[in-house]
Amino acid sequence: MRFLTQSGVEDDIMPYNTTRRRVLQTAGVGGAAALAGCTVGSGPANDVRTSPVQFQTDEPAELGDAKPVDVDRIAADPTDIPAPITRSEPATIEVELETLELVAEVEEGVTFTYMTFNGQIPGPMIRTRVGDTVDLTITNHPDNVMPHNVDFHAVRGPGGGAEDTLVNPGESKRIRFQVTYPGLFIYHCAVPNLDYHISAGMFGCILVEPEEGLPEVDHEFYLGQHELYTNGKTGQKGHHEFNFAAMAMEEPTYVLTNGEKYAIGPQKYNDMVMQTGETARVYFGVGGPNLFSSFHPIGSVWDEVYPQGAIMSDPHRYVQTTPVLPGSAVIATLTSPVPLPIKLVDHALSRVARKGNLAVIDVQGEEDPTIYDPNPA
Amino acid sequence: MRFLTQSGVEDDIMPYNTTRRRVLQTAGVGGAAALAGCTVGSGPANDVRTSPVQFQTDEPAELGDAKPVDVDRIAADPTDIPAPITRSEPATIEVELETLELVAEVEEGVTFTYMTFNGQIPGPMIRTRVGDTVDLTITNHPDNVMPHNVDFHAVRGPGGGAEDTLVNPGESKRIRFQVTYPGLFIYHCAVPNLDYHISAGMFGCILVEPEEGLPEVDHEFYLGQHELYTNGKTGQKGHHEFNFAAMAMEEPTYVLTNGEKYAIGPQKYNDMVMQTGETARVYFGVGGPNLFSSFHPIGSVWDEVYPQGAIMSDPHRYVQTTPVLPGSAVIATLTSPVPLPIKLVDHALSRVARKGNLAVIDVQGEEDPTIYDPNPA
Amino acid sequence: MRFLTQSGVEDDIMPYNTTRRRVLQTAGVGGAAALAGCTVGSGPANDVRTSPVQFQTDEPAELGDAKPVDVDRIAADPTDIPAPITRSEPATIEVELETLELVAEVEEGVTFTYMTFNGQIPGPMIRTRVGDTVDLTITNHPDNVMPHNVDFHAVRGPGGGAEDTLVNPGESKRIRFQVTYPGLFIYHCAVPNLDYHISAGMFGCILVEPEEGLPEVDHEFYLGQHELYTNGKTGQKGHHEFNFAAMAMEEPTYVLTNGEKYAIGPQKYNDMVMQTGETARVYFGVGGPNLFSSFHPIGSVWDEVYPQGAIMSDPHRYVQTTPVLPGSAVIATLTSPVPLPIKLVDHALSRVARKGNLAVIDVQGEEDPTIYDPNPA
Repeated sequence: MRFLTQSGVEDDIMPYNTTRRRVLQTAGVGGAAALAGCTVGSGPANDVRTSPVQFQTDEPAELGDAKPVDVDRIAADPTDIPAPITRSEPATIEVELETLELVAEVEEGVTFTYMTFNGQIPGPMIRTRVGDTVDLTITNHPDNVMPHNVDFHAVRGPGGGAEDTLVNPGESKRIRFQVTYPGLFIYHCAVPNLDYHISAGMFGCILVEPEEGLPEVDHEFYLGQHELYTNGKTGQKGHHEFNFAAMAMEEPTYVLTNGEKYAIGPQKYNDMVMQTGETARVYFGVGGPNLFSSFHPIGSVWDEVYPQGAIMSDPHRYVQTTPVLPGSAVIATLTSPVPLPIKLVDHALSRVARKGNLAVIDVQGEEDPTIYDPNPA
Repeated sequence: MRFLTQSGVEDDIMPYNTTRRRVLQTAGVGGAAALAGCTVGSGPANDVRTSPVQFQTDEPAELGDAKPVDVDRIAADPTDIPAPITRSEPATIEVELETLELVAEVEEGVTFTYMTFNGQIPGPMIRTRVGDTVDLTITNHPDNVMPHNVDFHAVRGPGGGAEDTLVNPGESKRIRFQVTYPGLFIYHCAVPNLDYHISAGMFGCILVEPEEGLPEVDHEFYLGQHELYTNGKTGQKGHHEFNFAAMAMEEPTYVLTNGEKYAIGPQKYNDMVMQTGETARVYFGVGGPNLFSSFHPIGSVWDEVYPQGAIMSDPHRYVQTTPVLPGSAVIATLTSPVPLPIKLVDHALSRVARKGNLAVIDVQGEEDPTIYDPNPA
Repeated sequence: MRFLTQSGVEDDIMPYNTTRRRVLQTAGVGGAAALAGCTVGSGPANDVRTSPVQFQTDEPAELGDAKPVDVDRIAADPTDIPAPITRSEPATIEVELETLELVAEVEEGVTFTYMTFNGQIPGPMIRTRVGDTVDLTITNHPDNVMPHNVDFHAVRGPGGGAEDTLVNPGESKRIRFQVTYPGLFIYHCAVPNLDYHISAGMFGCILVEPEEGLPEVDHEFYLGQHELYTNGKTGQKGHHEFNFAAMAMEEPTYVLTNGEKYAIGPQKYNDMVMQTGETARVYFGVGGPNLFSSFHPIGSVWDEVYPQGAIMSDPHRYVQTTPVLPGSAVIATLTSPVPLPIKLVDHALSRVARKGNLAVIDVQGEEDPTIYDPNPA
């Protein structure tokens, strides 16, 4: 992906590894943000893979063997964020989304056929400024088997763009839209079985900065939560198929941050590192399709929160836990005077203890026993 | 129903068709809003219709044949709203609610015995101004089989009025209360099995305008979401009986806007029509009994939102998705610069894809390719 | 428990009866709030008591007989709150939490082995002022069988303190921390099976007052909601064992205020009594572990609400129903011009009708028929 920064320099960002034969497109155009991507397949008729209901009993389901993975990592890098916008005039932003259906591991030994924007969960973060025009191309990779499209919550137009972006495998479509209001917004696939496509991974965020931009911070992190409905038990080895009945009952097998169990943090991909006293802004989207997140930073607090990403509203201050609805997002800032792992969780804690939900910010620095003293005299 | 407008003219509003023999009362008194209504039956003892648990498996339940309907349409007309209040002095508002138990279709071939206020879901919108006194009469239609009552969230008094309005079939009761705080508030039946009565349709909204009134808009729309728990599968033909076990587990068969599957919009009752550039205010109540709505306008945004209907709080601006809790409501405004169907949904999207949730505003007018261009050059 | 009041006088507060042999510690230190407490047991290995899934069908589960209770009352007294802080300088507050595992009745004939802080649900309310230092000792009673610890949402430090407070039965640990931001915050046990420990009762609130304190009110009440997952049906007589599968599916057997069915109010423990025209502030925490509360006062309204306990944000005014997330809290005020039972409920009403959720404020005084008249002329 390429993003034109304020000074006109293009940055190449290619954060994911792929072992699949397809090449993720990274074309960019001057003055534009180009987002590369995925594939498409057959029509809506075979867009349903029913399977018997399997709830959280003690008996394992009958699963096939785990499949070879197409990518080693489906979790997006939380630091893969376009630079803050400093220009004072509207621009046209070129964005390329490619839909990719990819086998990857939810956790070791557990595979699933994800559907993604650009091979990552959440899909690429798109950064704009209010008044900008987005020139969007969506391409459905020829190896895919599903149709896809995209609905942006930042779009004023039919289906948020979905009605004009339906692409079968091998097809591309293009629309243009102006972003007319600031905030952090979800985008997601919106074909008839949209809940299945979102559950399989098809969501991301688009940031629309206000004219004056956002306050400067030391770090920006971008994360996404969604839930996965399968025919297996949580943690059961093998290849999990999608489960429509469990989705209708809103009984997920996994509730994940960035698409993998406990993916982001010192335990796996330690992408979010900061020093004591530094500030961080977290962009957090919830694809759902059905559950909201009670978003909480363990060992810290949200210093400022813009609920549902509505940055033109008054922020809430010193918030322990904030609701982030399915199909919504939040902008929240934090800092820490002491070193610690800040564990970002959905405080519906069984989703953390039993369903894989966790992302960790590694805060490094000097202890400050006036703030926190584990061994008082 | 009759509402006295500012100029003293009475409007007759009779939005529903009925094939049932009972006549919906439409009496009104000068200076008053009169709301007509329903019926009542036997006591609490037979207020429970248990049935075996039926979850969303692939096997159909055993249902009886669909029943003849009492009304062709149970969905309230979203434009059936009393006119904005322009007077500057308190008034006494006479309101008549009649409880009616009616067989109607959830969708084609699927019948259910609804319980309603005045034969519609949601019940009639009552419009008052802070400081007004409401003189309420509730009548339980003699053909009903259940006792009913009403709890208003705008009332300061025992049970929000419920403790003094219990009526058996054929009975009437009357109370008077002052509305002392502004906002949009739910009212609902509150007999011992109140969750069953709400799930069967017994909820509506009362608006208490602030002294200065609300800003002028081009359109006002009134909608209500609730969930239905039955012994059948979603979409299964036949007569669905109520299912207490599914309700206790909060696993609904349908999650509906205005009580019918996909009722409001060009696909069925195209009541909500506006032109590009016009403004609309949406009054949206959630009866529940158990689920909240992640309320989102597809292809648009809420320009202003008063969360939980609390209009004396600061509004949130440019909100993609707002939580509307069970037993709560929201006041939200929108506009559109381009023509489109704005699809109002609970963004827990399996409720849209699989459980019937949808209401559509038909925005008509000229395209504006600077805002949205499906075919860029 | 002893709390040093502003004037230096110590109050002894010992709200619970116990028939168990252990003595609840009540040590206090000058200038400090001392909170007494509980016990601990074996390691994480036996911290899981699996049991077959039992959902809300009509067949009873196989339960053992109800056990002899260790305490007659597990519900905390809502008026057991330290006095408002009037000092203008930071202080060091000594807090003692004891973890106690206790058999008690959920309702008559239904017993459960609770886990608690200090033998009560919610755990003791801790009251501090921003800038104070808390000197915390946690003790795990030697008769317990589980390890425990504590995570405070008011702490900036690893695990909110949990990483340095793990205690096995018979052990004590001590940490010191400064409270650096105001608000009402949850604390809870956070061992690996933290959702089980919270579901069994291990949560409470810590209030951090802003420098200027809180506005004076006539009454303060403190309550906590959480949900219980067992192998029995709601109301089934006998001893209920914990059910991990039901918890993973977020299908509770009970959703309780202060740990017992319908505990607080004229119907059982009439602790919350006020007069018409008086004001009350409610501190309400939700332990979860998984469900949020749609917190509503039947027959009244929240005059002011600080959502999620974030008291440095603007309050919302005249709110019918406010979301209180799992792992969060709320500060809300009310008054009433007329006598009534104000029923505090989670407006997901099946939890009230079917799962035990209710707490009642008994408002006494003179009728005012201009506000509410059940028998109008």
